[in-house]
Amino acid sequence: MPVAGGLTHLDANGHAVMVDVADKPATVRQAVARGQVTMRPETLGLILSGGMKKGDVLAVARIAGIMAAKKTADLIPLCHPLALSSVRVDLAPSQDGSGIEIEASVGTTGPTGVEMEALTAVSVCALTLYDMCKAVDRDMTIGNVRLIAKSGGRSGLYQRDVAAQAPAAG
Amino acid sequence: MPVAGGLTHLDANGHAVMVDVADKPATVRQAVARGQVTMRPETLGLILSGGMKKGDVLAVARIAGIMAAKKTADLIPLCHPLALSSVRVDLAPSQDGSGIEIEASVGTTGPTGVEMEALTAVSVCALTLYDMCKAVDRDMTIGNVRLIAKSGGRSGLYQRDVAAQAPAAG
Amino acid sequence: MPVAGGLTHLDANGHAVMVDVADKPATVRQAVARGQVTMRPETLGLILSGGMKKGDVLAVARIAGIMAAKKTADLIPLCHPLALSSVRVDLAPSQDGSGIEIEASVGTTGPTGVEMEALTAVSVCALTLYDMCKAVDRDMTIGNVRLIAKSGGRSGLYQRDVAAQAPAAG
Amino acid sequence: MPVAGGLTHLDANGHAVMVDVADKPATVRQAVARGQVTMRPETLGLILSGGMKKGDVLAVARIAGIMAAKKTADLIPLCHPLALSSVRVDLAPSQDGSGIEIEASVGTTGPTGVEMEALTAVSVCALTLYDMCKAVDRDMTIGNVRLIAKSGGRSGLYQRDVAAQAPAAG
Amino acid sequence: MPVAGGLTHLDANGHAVMVDVADKPATVRQAVARGQVTMRPETLGLILSGGMKKGDVLAVARIAGIMAAKKTADLIPLCHPLALSSVRVDLAPSQDGSGIEIEASVGTTGPTGVEMEALTAVSVCALTLYDMCKAVDRDMTIGNVRLIAKSGGRSGLYQRDVAAQAPAAG
Amino acid sequence: MPVAGGLTHLDANGHAVMVDVADKPATVRQAVARGQVTMRPETLGLILSGGMKKGDVLAVARIAGIMAAKKTADLIPLCHPLALSSVRVDLAPSQDGSGIEIEASVGTTGPTGVEMEALTAVSVCALTLYDMCKAVDRDMTIGNVRLIAKSGGRSGLYQRDVAAQAPAAG
Repeated sequence: MPVAGGLTHLDANGHAVMVDVADKPATVRQAVARGQVTMRPETLGLILSGGMKKGDVLAVARIAGIMAAKKTADLIPLCHPLALSSVRVDLAPSQDGSGIEIEASVGTTGPTGVEMEALTAVSVCALTLYDMCKAVDRDMTIGNVRLIAKSGGRSGLYQRDVAAQAPAAG
Repeated sequence: MPVAGGLTHLDANGHAVMVDVADKPATVRQAVARGQVTMRPETLGLILSGGMKKGDVLAVARIAGIMAAKKTADLIPLCHPLALSSVRVDLAPSQDGSGIEIEASVGTTGPTGVEMEALTAVSVCALTLYDMCKAVDRDMTIGNVRLIAKSGGRSGLYQRDVAAQAPAAG
Repeated sequence: MPVAGGLTHLDANGHAVMVDVADKPATVRQAVARGQVTMRPETLGLILSGGMKKGDVLAVARIAGIMAAKKTADLIPLCHPLALSSVRVDLAPSQDGSGIEIEASVGTTGPTGVEMEALTAVSVCALTLYDMCKAVDRDMTIGNVRLIAKSGGRSGLYQRDVAAQAPAAG
Repeated sequence: MPVAGGLTHLDANGHAVMVDVADKPATVRQAVARGQVTMRPETLGLILSGGMKKGDVLAVARIAGIMAAKKTADLIPLCHPLALSSVRVDLAPSQDGSGIEIEASVGTTGPTGVEMEALTAVSVCALTLYDMCKAVDRDMTIGNVRLIAKSGGRSGLYQRDVAAQAPAAG
Repeated sequence: MPVAGGLTHLDANGHAVMVDVADKPATVRQAVARGQVTMRPETLGLILSGGMKKGDVLAVARIAGIMAAKKTADLIPLCHPLALSSVRVDLAPSQDGSGIEIEASVGTTGPTGVEMEALTAVSVCALTLYDMCKAVDRDMTIGNVRLIAKSGGRSGLYQRDVAAQAPAAG
Repeated sequence: MPVAGGLTHLDANGHAVMVDVADKPATVRQAVARGQVTMRPETLGLILSGGMKKGDVLAVARIAGIMAAKKTADLIPLCHPLALSSVRVDLAPSQDGSGIEIEASVGTTGPTGVEMEALTAVSVCALTLYDMCKAVDRDMTIGNVRLIAKSGGRSGLYQRDVAAQAPAAG
């Protein structure tokens, strides 16, 4: 796997490649990512109020996230295609009432990790929420999209440092 | 166009629909969105240093953003398909050295706006940067993905309030 | 537009073509299609009972139908790509309790009709219901997928004869 | 694998998930599905008459079915992506002359079954036939789309009860 | 439309962009492209012999070409999405018996030309022929893929110089 | 695996099938393909001159080739979907100055070979070069797209005979 100055995905000439993972064994891997959509309180109220009738807003966003996880290798040019074994996307109002928190968990048995799939699920779920609420609130912001945890594979367990998560708001 | 409590994309029963735009005339529309990938200084250094050899990192991210704009209606369930007339994605280091800023500008002549296309381009460009740098920095954060400006269509010009942009960081 | 024995989509040699519609004006067009998924009463009960908690079953099927309408030209080889202006998919229990009825309504302003988009939305919505219920009922049947009405374009209004709908059950 | 009232694909809160199959071994699996397109005798005559010149009608429908099997996980939101090892789609006139019978057989070596792939192949094959014949017959009906047999995996062999197949016609 | 040294698709900094065509009127446009697959005489014999039974080889290649034309903007990063109004793909044995000649004709009413769609149809049709014959002949070559004619749009009529076509063989 | 006159992909009736590979073991496989885009010297000069600013032309073509390799089974109707383990695409000016040479190398651990993925990467890379240069040179030709080498699987090593490569030019 050639590297240019430490960046994989580039060969010795700086050219993009889909790096060779033929030597990496297929192992059970999981990744969890999170992000948030910040919005006005009234926008959040519209999403949460109304009980069953509003059910589709969160369901549409959840399904968009799940389907996007399956399209990751089609969106990210140098990402390896993977047969995902599980995807779930959860949405909940932020504790401080500033918007909606999104968490995606993805699993596979394969040669590469699934952090990109989890991050893609969060991002497209957030974009879908934005789409459905944009007629009432164009100032929403998608932010704090980040990897929370990752297991399996040569690099072992990754657990995001809580301190690193705290300050970010966007 | 039925609405449930102010949210378009839902009918009177709260069911998701792709809203009817048959009565909206095709007009020239543009949208600009921005976002950022926050990273360690050494990660930013790897992307920027090295001159021509590193050219592919930013080029891959740029192209991923452009191609994603064309896939927006395939990713966002209730988004109308549109024939885009222009897409550009620009990347630059943040002024404070905290990462990479991304800006996407999209245009169409059509019945609906292109803010989702611009936001999708920014998000997938950011995910692609994350993918190429994740082997050296798993703590990167994608944030502040937001609409900056929008023109054309019934709702007229939208220009994001600068004050609303300032505090967000994530 | 060459035809072979009355079938469009074939030229004089019987070869498949995407027929030329350059001379057809873009007009407002709509189509409505219906179909049903026949299932055991207990399966239907699982879908309908439980109030809000079960909301996602019908929402997932509805969204799958809407997204499939946008993929019609990618699935049907000789189908023209069209910019859809509206899509809605409705589900309801059959009056006789034998399953779920699906209705899809699609609109466009374009040179060709949208009956294939409406029929595709119904079919994929039905397949999605099957997928979610197959663990409890493998004997479900998707049937009676048909065009109900169509307007716009040279061939004018089509309204399915009720007598033609009645006997079909599968 | 959390379930809500017996339906997989929903967690304890009724939220859609792509269920975790990481613990399921990859085994050889097969599935056979069938369906039919009911049409006027003259429409069937146009498809079947003419010898070689009409060859493309059935070939186009066959290929559309095969390609659709590969797109199943892109169409059905909670369906796992699978590397298919075989797909075949056969078409034949119904014994009673009422239309065209379609049968799809799909195989994989994987953790989940391929009934959705077989049912999707049948459905899209049928839609493609409809598309090619709709200019001469808008009253066609797609029906009786059902699973015939399934092997491999924990649930073992499934063979549809002939009695259950008989009455359906639509 | 910024250019770098004469190449459109690059801005003044050499960065890839999807150039702005908002000012270009939608006009009727057509393009014709050709190419060939060179193969052993026995391979050609297998494709052509056998009458009706072999019909599917050419039909599969033809349909693959037509479907690929519709995917052009998904394959070529800076290509504008277009609603195609016609696509046809014709195959015939080369006059000198060296293989199969492919011709694709594509039309649209839109702001940009369809030469990429025609060239993509030829290329994917050729790849599909290769795929179906590769078990008997791995030495096949796809060559001479070129634009033959183009009409509509600001640049007017293009007709390839016959002399330029003659020598190429590969 | 039924064959018709030696052509796999066709059953005994000449009907297209995705052949059954369930019995083929997953082995490490690689394939290398090459092709060229012939162009005017001035066109080649525009691509190569200018140093860093022109970087995006070759990068865009390279990435388009890599992404196309991942879409092969979506483009070639009877091609099996495969999880690719590596893809690289290299571009260089022809030794005789007649254009750009493209080489794609693809690897997988799977039941079928990856020659179609390598050939598809070369073809789409070439089409992308054509797209970016067509405003200055419509006479470019894509040619000599061929398999160079292949390893792994039952058929063992394939190495293209140099003599077979030499004469082709188109």
